[in-house]
Parts: sequence; C-alpha cells; structure tokens
Amino acid sequence: MGIREMVGTAGFSCVAGGVTAPAGFKAAGLNCGLKKSKKDLALLVSEVPCAAAGLFTTNRVKAAPVLVTQEKLAFGRAQAVVVNSGNANACTGPRGLEDARAMAGITAGALGIPEELVLVASTGVIGVPLPVEKLAAGIPRAAALLDRAGHRDAAEAILTTDTCVKEAAVTFTLGGRRVTIGGMAKGSGMIHPDMATMLAFLTTDAAIAPGVLRLALHTAADASFHMISVDGDTSTNDMVLIMANGLAGNERVATLEAAAPFIAALKEVCMALARAIARDGEGATRLIEVRVRGAPTMADARLAARAVAASNLVKAAVFGRDANWGRIICAAGYSGARFDPDRCDIYLGSLPVARAGNGLPFDEDEARRILEQDPVVITLDLKSGTAEATAWGCDLTYDYVRINASYRS
Amino acid sequence: MGIREMVGTAGFSCVAGGVTAPAGFKAAGLNCGLKKSKKDLALLVSEVPCAAAGLFTTNRVKAAPVLVTQEKLAFGRAQAVVVNSGNANACTGPRGLEDARAMAGITAGALGIPEELVLVASTGVIGVPLPVEKLAAGIPRAAALLDRAGHRDAAEAILTTDTCVKEAAVTFTLGGRRVTIGGMAKGSGMIHPDMATMLAFLTTDAAIAPGVLRLALHTAADASFHMISVDGDTSTNDMVLIMANGLAGNERVATLEAAAPFIAALKEVCMALARAIARDGEGATRLIEVRVRGAPTMADARLAARAVAASNLVKAAVFGRDANWGRIICAAGYSGARFDPDRCDIYLGSLPVARAGNGLPFDEDEARRILEQDPVVITLDLKSGTAEATAWGCDLTYDYVRINASYRS
Repeated sequence: MGIREMVGTAGFSCVAGGVTAPAGFKAAGLNCGLKKSKKDLALLVSEVPCAAAGLFTTNRVKAAPVLVTQEKLAFGRAQAVVVNSGNANACTGPRGLEDARAMAGITAGALGIPEELVLVASTGVIGVPLPVEKLAAGIPRAAALLDRAGHRDAAEAILTTDTCVKEAAVTFTLGGRRVTIGGMAKGSGMIHPDMATMLAFLTTDAAIAPGVLRLALHTAADASFHMISVDGDTSTNDMVLIMANGLAGNERVATLEAAAPFIAALKEVCMALARAIARDGEGATRLIEVRVRGAPTMADARLAARAVAASNLVKAAVFGRDANWGRIICAAGYSGARFDPDRCDIYLGSLPVARAGNGLPFDEDEARRILEQDPVVITLDLKSGTAEATAWGCDLTYDYVRINASYRS
Repeated sequence: MGIREMVGTAGFSCVAGGVTAPAGFKAAGLNCGLKKSKKDLALLVSEVPCAAAGLFTTNRVKAAPVLVTQEKLAFGRAQAVVVNSGNANACTGPRGLEDARAMAGITAGALGIPEELVLVASTGVIGVPLPVEKLAAGIPRAAALLDRAGHRDAAEAILTTDTCVKEAAVTFTLGGRRVTIGGMAKGSGMIHPDMATMLAFLTTDAAIAPGVLRLALHTAADASFHMISVDGDTSTNDMVLIMANGLAGNERVATLEAAAPFIAALKEVCMALARAIARDGEGATRLIEVRVRGAPTMADARLAARAVAASNLVKAAVFGRDANWGRIICAAGYSGARFDPDRCDIYLGSLPVARAGNGLPFDEDEARRILEQDPVVITLDLKSGTAEATAWGCDLTYDYVRINASYRS
C-alpha cells in the first residue's frame, strides 16, 4: 500500500514523500491526547501562500470544520492545513464553529501566518465537543516538528479505523519544469453505502490559477474519490483539499487546455489514494475493481460501476469466493444505468460468466481462484455504447461488522 | 412472528389462517426437488375467478415470471398463483419465458382453469434454467393437496434464507359484511441496500373493482413494503400480488372513498408482513423501527426514515448496542430529505440523545438497555413541519456476512 501502489503511466514518475514531495511543503503529526496514544494531530504547511481549492460533503449535516474551511476557500488561497482525528467536531452547534475557528487561530499563531490562510479538518466521533485545550497544547508542538520528512507522521495522524497510511506522489514535466503532486488520505468505513469520513489532502509545487486548480480537482475527483462512494451518500466531514504553491517555477497555468498534463497527473495521485482507501475498507481483505464498458453514456457507466462496487451482496460474495454473477447484473439493474440486460456480458477477471444476459457454463474452481486474487476485477460489457467507467470497492467481512458494532468504545 | 405479530387496531381483528383466512381460498406447499428437502413449491387458488393486481420490481433486469405475470395482470383478473423457491428463473433468456409460461400452463391443466388466470412467481438463484420437469411432477401433487389448512405449507414453500414463515390476516366489517384479508410473504436478504427477492401474496373475499384494488395495493405498499426497501434498489424477482374473490358478499367496492376501510385493513396486513420481513433480515437479531416526524413533506419523512433504517453503520451500531446517534443524523443528512440539522431532535426509545442537532448527556447504560430491546425504536423529530413516516430495518450482524458469503453453496 502507500506510495508503491501507483500505476506507472507514461509521463509520470512515482516518487516517495507524500504531501511533502512537492517543493516547499513541510508536515508533522503527533498525539495531542484526543486518542489514547495514536497520532491524532496533523499539520501541513507551505513556505509561501498557495492557490487552494476544496471539495466538500454534500451531506445536509455539515461539520463545523467543513463550514469554516468552505468559507476560507472562497478566496482560493491557503498556506496551511491543520487536521485532527478522534473527534469530528460535527453536531456541536455554535460552539463547534468557535472551536474550529480557534483551531485555525491557534495554528496561525504558532506558524506566524494570517488566520484566513489556515484550513481545518476533523474526523472521528460525532456530537462530542472538541477538546480545544488539547489542540492548543499540541499545535505549537506540531509546528516545532514541521519537516520535509514529516509526511508519514501527518498521514498517520489523520487515520481513524484505517489499517495503513495512504500516500502517493508523482512527478512530471509541465512547461519544461519538473512539477510534483503529492497527497495523503484517510479511508472511510466500508466507503459506501454510508461512508464514514473520507479526507484527502493534496499538494503541488505547480503554479496554477485558483479557478483552474478547482476545475482540475473536480475532474480528478470524478475519476477517483467519487468512484469509491456514491454522490449524496456522504459523511458530515468529507473533504478533499489541494494547495499549489508555485515553487516549481513553471509558467502559471491559467487555462484548462494548459492544465491537461497537470490534470492527468493529479488524477493518477487521486486514483492511487482512492484505490488505497477502497482496499483498506473496514475489515476488507480484497480490493474489488468494477469496470463497466459499452455504456450509452459516461453517466450510465458510472452509475452501473458504482452500484456493483457498492453492493453488499456482491461484496459478501467476493469475501466468500462465490461466483454469484446474478448479484452483479442485479446491482447494475437497480443502479439507474440505462442498458439492455439481454445484451450484457460479465467477466470475473478474464473468465466469461454470462453472455447476453444469460449464464455461461464456467469452471467453478477457476472462478474461485479469480475471486481469491487481490484485486478482484469484475467487468460488465453493456454492449449499448462506447462509454466506460471504473469503480472500486472491497469485500464485506465479519470484521466490518465487528468494527462498526462498537466504534465508540 | 407470523400471525401474532399484528398490532390490534380499532376496527380490525387479527385472525389465523394466512392466505386462506378469506372465504374461498385454498393453498398447498411441498417439496418438488428444486431444494434438497425443504418445501419449494406453493399453490394458492380461489374457488372462483378474482379481481387481481400486482406490484413488480423496478429493476431493469426483470425475471421471466415477473414479465409473464405482469402481462397476465393487464386484464386485472386471476384465480391461482404458483410459486417456486430455489430458482429465480432470472437471466435465463427466451427459455426462461417459455419455462414461466409452462409453469402457468401446467398449473392451469392441473386445476382445470384457463391459463391466463394463473400467475407465476419464482425466487432463488439467478441465471440457472428452471427445471420444469420437476415442477411438472410437483404441481399436480400440490393441486391434490389444496386445502383451507394449507396456508402454512404454502408460506413455508416460498421461503429462501428466511428463518420463519410470515403470515397475517385480519377481519373487519365492510358494507355490513364480514370481510377478511390474508397474506404471506418471504423476506429478502438484509432488505436493503441490495435486496434479495421480496415476495408477498395477499388474498381477500371482498368484492372490489380491479382498478380500486390496484390503487388500494399501491397505498398499502407505500406504508409497508416500500418502507423496508428503497425505490430502485430492487431484485430481479420482487412481486406483490393480491386476489379478491368477492365471496364475502359485500356490495362491490367501486370507488376509493368506499374502499377506505378496506385500504386501512390491507395496510395493517401489509405492515405486519413488512415488519416480519425486516425482523427476519438475514442474520438479524432485532427489528429497528425508525419514526420520523416533523418533516416538511411526507416524501421528506419517507426519505429520512428509510435512509436511517437502511444505514449499515446504524444497523451495525444497533447490533453492538452502541448509542452512536451521530450515524443517525448523518444518514438523515445524506437521504435527500429537506430539514435543518440544527433543529433535529433524536430519541432512542423514549431517551433523548440529541436536541437541536447537538448531543445531550445521557445515561449510556440506559441507552444500551434500549438498544437491547426488540424492536429498537429510533425517533427523529425534524421540527420542520408536520409530516410523518415510519420505516423498518434490522441490525447488521456477523451472520449476515456468513449467509451471503456462500449463498449458492
């Protein structure tokens, strides 16, 4: 997992270093007492102010840090992010908003930068007031620890039930300059259907206009984070942030056309993080990759791929190594995607299990071997067009239930 | 469970007898070899032709029996239903349609009634051709066993992973006559988010016009079967059928106004069956009842109630007796229901756990005792209007995963 999870694609090189791989970023992570002993406070800072953009939960219930960070990003600028795990600061009323602002203020003071350039994020239990005094003690300590080598500590400090850190970084050439994009993320329950918080923080040394940066983030998220969850099924705290500090010295990217290589590279980083999140779903033993092709439109392909990847019955069948393809076509059937079931072909790995909507005889042992692999690749060819999409999920296991039956204890 | 699960409501009396409680209905259930030894074939017949109506899966992938029965119900008449479990006859192509028609034809022959009056339903594994020869041998045997006392055998024969039969019946007065409505149902995986097949068969001796019967069925299903699943998330085989044979001798109900007492009674039967289905969700140990009040519209109330009842995280928290109310408001938040989170109150049983969107201090031991009860009642008061809705679900347990990891084996 982590930085080695990247797919090598022409034009990109995978590099180590996560969020501090790009020039001019430092990070730190430590325990400030929100959790018993695990790290629970992360700090990520750029040497200079950045263009910044964010994506936020569409849940009607928005945590205080979401509201505060959304407000700050109206100007498209930021220089630091402070993140705590162990407490979501959600459903905490006016006090929650004050606490989120205090968290930013304390960080600004410790770093000596304007408060409006400090973004905040939280994840953890809902409905419990944030112990700001612990953050007030922890943030100056984190500021003192800020280092280029601190990316992994920061990546650790944002985790909740995740079993491993999730980092990625790529380097590529943009306008003749070497540009780097890095990122870290935390996973989110079983991701779907009712995802626990997903957080992702992205950094780059590219020079890029805030408006273009925002569009690039949307595009990259559509092919990555949005394919491991379903729009509308979001937690109170979900957030994806990106900061671009321009220290790579490239000519400032001011149009979407000029941003194409940047967007492609950002998509790679986001997809690596998204796959890592799906692979580390609570209790998961295997990543499930659902490829839909032959859809009439991209929207149909996305709907079908996400429904199959999110189906409890498909997920449980993968856990049980049971080649129950009927559940796959059934999930596509209720997804809302338009297709003719009587044309649909289904494959497990490269093994055809259904053709034109009907079962094929297949070797159950071979199917079982395929379902034991990681990732398990499921392909649906809808034979109704040319659009394609890929979604990711994980198997549903006993451990998912164990973890979620006593999350607060 | 079963017939005693009914809530006694003024005007109705609960009676025994399930689908054969109304006058003029007989039933039978037996094993015809689709399953190893459990009953797998049910027959339900009226002495005389009936007004009939049905509700069918909205899944784009529709099983052959769904297509065949939909076609037959175009005329609003039926006299018998033949149901098999153990094989869904879904994703079986043109042969599946032939097999479903053959199943109806064999039944018509055995009963000596027109084939167009025989409805068919199937549930079980998808994608395997129906062994019609087994049904051809079993159906005449079932016809010979038809009896007023056969309701329980029939109710057994339609089950798959259900752990108990689901029957209900009420009697009431309509136009001065004693009228009875009976029903049986089979449950459906965890019901949601990707429900396995739900089947329900309803009978009545009321005289009622087919058009009114259809509207009555829609109304009753909206308050019952549709509140244990989410529109659009349906299996390939879902079906609810009702037959009204008129033998109660009441003046034929020809308007919705005159149908009001009938609809109220039908709703009771459907709600009893729906609760029984939810309570018997795969691996479930407790029924969860989610009451939403104070919603701006009925649609908002229904969305919020269903999202909470269907949330994996809420279901797992109930299993673990963990009073994690944040997951409740989070599910309401992503449901699409319109409400102001800062006004929402939440109760576990009668214990207030959140007020105006903020957590209240509460006794954890008391909360744990409430979460050990069956049913667990969760109430959300959205404080944004006067509309109400109730939805049902069950807890998410290790056994759900066990059952679904190896359904086909």
